[in-house]
Amino acid sequence: MKIDILTLFPEFFNTLYKWSIIGRAYEEGIIHINCINIRDFSKDKHKRVDDYPFGGGAGMVMKPEPIYDAIQSVKGPKSRTVYLSPQGKVFNQDLANNLSKEEHIILLCGHYEGIDNRIIEHYIDEEISIGDYVLTGGEIPAMVIIDAVTRLLPGVLSSEESFIEESHFNGLLEYPQYTRPREFNGYNVPDILLSGHHENIENWRKREALKATFMKRPDLLEKRDLTKEEIEILSQIKDYSE
Amino acid sequence: MKIDILTLFPEFFNTLYKWSIIGRAYEEGIIHINCINIRDFSKDKHKRVDDYPFGGGAGMVMKPEPIYDAIQSVKGPKSRTVYLSPQGKVFNQDLANNLSKEEHIILLCGHYEGIDNRIIEHYIDEEISIGDYVLTGGEIPAMVIIDAVTRLLPGVLSSEESFIEESHFNGLLEYPQYTRPREFNGYNVPDILLSGHHENIENWRKREALKATFMKRPDLLEKRDLTKEEIEILSQIKDYSE
Repeated sequence: MKIDILTLFPEFFNTLYKWSIIGRAYEEGIIHINCINIRDFSKDKHKRVDDYPFGGGAGMVMKPEPIYDAIQSVKGPKSRTVYLSPQGKVFNQDLANNLSKEEHIILLCGHYEGIDNRIIEHYIDEEISIGDYVLTGGEIPAMVIIDAVTRLLPGVLSSEESFIEESHFNGLLEYPQYTRPREFNGYNVPDILLSGHHENIENWRKREALKATFMKRPDLLEKRDLTKEEIEILSQIKDYSE
Repeated sequence: MKIDILTLFPEFFNTLYKWSIIGRAYEEGIIHINCINIRDFSKDKHKRVDDYPFGGGAGMVMKPEPIYDAIQSVKGPKSRTVYLSPQGKVFNQDLANNLSKEEHIILLCGHYEGIDNRIIEHYIDEEISIGDYVLTGGEIPAMVIIDAVTRLLPGVLSSEESFIEESHFNGLLEYPQYTRPREFNGYNVPDILLSGHHENIENWRKREALKATFMKRPDLLEKRDLTKEEIEILSQIKDYSE
């Protein structure tokens, strides 16, 4: 997969290429990441990329031409152009899956007050937001998308890692994990995990995953089709917690 | 504000110190960011930090001792320790505001399958997730939190920038912005923005912000107490879109 990042801060991504699983995928040529400085496309002698908003108001708006030219410099017939924006649809694992099928993604990072709306209306395919919080620009959101998408590309994760990945997102939070030592600062690993009884361990983990989801993220349970067994376990948890 | 990041990839943050508004706040000493390598606290001769999970299963779990020792090396009486985790409460602007009141934040970045649950239960104050997607580790989420929180610290944004910041988060998406040129690739700036009639421009922007929110993020409208005027505008928009 080819990923072009259009940004005013290309150096910001320098460490991404070397980081963990993304670094490995980059080294192995599974992803090609390229940063393009939008400022290089400014025709202004001061290399300005922003200007005052029409209609007044505080802040500056990124001008349309440099962004348009930057997009054109990388866009091909199979490109999908994404603008990282607080106005976008909220990123989630389904959207990551969907993006992972593309050959070429262009990630446009905004800054300042925003970008000229004609770019959004006519030259990008979609706006994506990574969550309901205000960030300085699209750079960190671009990293989020690159990380989530790269992990889904064939050959990036080992089969064992992929297996974990799937279990990560069956719509429930994870069950608690423990490793050595058995006792740490007076706190013990739950006995059941030391029992060697696989079926009991499996049942305990299912229950703990449901319990964690019920306690911390009940909204996830509403979005999910629960099995009969899960409904049964949940009703026990609810009785207990009341 | 002091921020300590506990991670296996301290170099990953090298570019954050130099980036835009965060870089400025760092230069001016408003935030002190410090990265601590959890691996430095491994007592294992191979500097291992993970081990097999009790009870079996795929993947590795980060051991409790190096994480505990890393936390202890920076923790003070006023520290708030956050574990970046998919199991956490979902980060939003309220939580950013809340964190911005702290003197010292410790951000613990996990990796591998997860970390030993005794750390989560006994040594951290809260788990935060930046959204419902799977990422390689807590590093990018830590950047998200640092960015969102730093912007809220006194002296980081100019008064003009702060003003924009507030308008960013009144619970609606933003109205579209335009800057020069008036015509770009045949697309014009809406006439009203060139009219010089401030009241009309203000009304148009209110309407466009409501319309954008209604079209793209209706869930935000449900969370908000709408004014009479907003309800009126929305009913017009709904009539029109039906």
